[in-house]
Amino acid sequence: MPQFRQNIILKEWVVIATERAKRPEQLKEHKAATAEALPAHDENCPFCPKTAHTHEEKEFLRVPEKGAWKLRAVANRYPALEPPGDNIHVYTEGFFRWMDGVGHHEVIVETPRHNTTLATMTVEEVETVVAAYRTRYVELSKMDYIETIIPFRNHGPRAGASIPHPHSQIIALPVIPRDVMTRLNEAIRYHEEHRGCVFCKVMNNELEVDERVVMETPGFVSFVPYAAASPFHMWVYPKKHSSDFWTISDEEVADLAHVLRGTLRKLYIGLNDPDYNFIVRSAPRGYGNSEFFHWYITIVPRLTRTAGFELGTGMFINPSIPEQDAEYLRSVKI
Amino acid sequence: MPQFRQNIILKEWVVIATERAKRPEQLKEHKAATAEALPAHDENCPFCPKTAHTHEEKEFLRVPEKGAWKLRAVANRYPALEPPGDNIHVYTEGFFRWMDGVGHHEVIVETPRHNTTLATMTVEEVETVVAAYRTRYVELSKMDYIETIIPFRNHGPRAGASIPHPHSQIIALPVIPRDVMTRLNEAIRYHEEHRGCVFCKVMNNELEVDERVVMETPGFVSFVPYAAASPFHMWVYPKKHSSDFWTISDEEVADLAHVLRGTLRKLYIGLNDPDYNFIVRSAPRGYGNSEFFHWYITIVPRLTRTAGFELGTGMFINPSIPEQDAEYLRSVKI
Repeated sequence: MPQFRQNIILKEWVVIATERAKRPEQLKEHKAATAEALPAHDENCPFCPKTAHTHEEKEFLRVPEKGAWKLRAVANRYPALEPPGDNIHVYTEGFFRWMDGVGHHEVIVETPRHNTTLATMTVEEVETVVAAYRTRYVELSKMDYIETIIPFRNHGPRAGASIPHPHSQIIALPVIPRDVMTRLNEAIRYHEEHRGCVFCKVMNNELEVDERVVMETPGFVSFVPYAAASPFHMWVYPKKHSSDFWTISDEEVADLAHVLRGTLRKLYIGLNDPDYNFIVRSAPRGYGNSEFFHWYITIVPRLTRTAGFELGTGMFINPSIPEQDAEYLRSVKI
Repeated sequence: MPQFRQNIILKEWVVIATERAKRPEQLKEHKAATAEALPAHDENCPFCPKTAHTHEEKEFLRVPEKGAWKLRAVANRYPALEPPGDNIHVYTEGFFRWMDGVGHHEVIVETPRHNTTLATMTVEEVETVVAAYRTRYVELSKMDYIETIIPFRNHGPRAGASIPHPHSQIIALPVIPRDVMTRLNEAIRYHEEHRGCVFCKVMNNELEVDERVVMETPGFVSFVPYAAASPFHMWVYPKKHSSDFWTISDEEVADLAHVLRGTLRKLYIGLNDPDYNFIVRSAPRGYGNSEFFHWYITIVPRLTRTAGFELGTGMFINPSIPEQDAEYLRSVKI
């Protein structure tokens, strides 16, 4: 019998389609070439050191290494959003409303090497990436018009990445998007009722039950949520309550790099380099330093596709079983 | 400059990414084989007449033709949901909640022919399909435990269709999914403020402005919404206000078949048979015969992929311009 499972944080129901459930190994990618099989440099790649238009680009951050660089943050060449000229206007067009597409969109080129990814980098390299997220997050927070900052990563074409060179992105918005607001509102409602953080509650339960944990370090835990919306969907939580990603210490940066790399490496080895997205979910301006919200990272491997049912309902059908997915990843040696 | 455009019905903002906007022709599929290039029958197809397990399957509807059939509605062999045994229970598992995955899931095999699709069928054939949606909708409405009925269609692998034989699906649920509830609530709010149907208002504006209309018939209009979430996203509205799809007359069935086939045919010819989903959005039980809701069909061509930004925000980036998409489709001769 299929199950509806409730995401206790968003109060949403997910269908765990037991009748069509796949074993973890069945979800393995049949990729012709993983990230490591690419050339070390590609002369057509806009992020490779020799071909990057480094003099034309607006550069926000450069982490130097032996006269060259090991990480750069640059303006997106085709930005989805652009910085404001002066004030932000809302225009009406008869019945409709529109605003200038104001915001900030940057790319973090994670390494000069073309043929690697977070799962195959050293822990120190991933640490440089996580530290760059923090640095840029802090800088962007200082811009008056910004409400929400979202570091994220698209890995592979099914995850929307058009360039294979390892990179992350940061989008900063003058608004709080509806999904972000929904998550905040549900957390506030929980806090009003129970005087606590629903995310802490979920995480402590996962640590106690220990059925869906994938990896644990002193300060972090990654696990498959009880009501995972898709196969191998995972959350990475800091154990210490904090609503704000950017407040992590250097020690926590190193620890997060360790758990993030390890969790992604289990995916890389266990499922043959699947495409994925991950998103750092931190409290928007005005909700910082709060008792009810808890920052975390959502990892979404793109192994299945949304279809008419998901588009029609907003509910997800997960053709795998969260406990089995977690067990499989735990067994993958990294 | 990119634009944020507001979906006036859901109050959501969409990014129209003008800086990365593609011309309509650039979004054309480079498919090896369209639906018509398939064999007329496939011996491995579970929906083809010779290979369908017609005696083993639960059949809900059969439209006969010359001793054989021209359409069948059958139980999904791998249902995402299953009918209830007795009552519907909600179980708690420590901190969590789950329910039996109760519901109804069926497949409408639209034709015995393997190598066609709605865009390449005759209007009469599409009429048979639309009439089957109505018949099955009415039947499913009689089941006490059902709240929401959603006829939908997945066309092509990027839209989640695993079997190419032309078919639709119907899911019926014991709950009102959150996205459906959100749409109802926003419509109710509009009605409270303005005493009218926000969908009628949007449609009448589209007919008047005539910038985004794709096709018009006596009773229906298809158009690209002002704040389309993705390229060639379209809505098909009945001109006459009605919250309930299942109330359409025989004459309206024929008219809807005409506009639906025509609109899909413009996609098929203009973009080389792109994968798409469509969903019939009709009022759930308890919201029927209402002044504030308006049934319609959403068509979502799957030409782009959602990435970290969409997953992180719930906001969509549309790399095309709705007015240009509509103009292009209007120019396609069918």
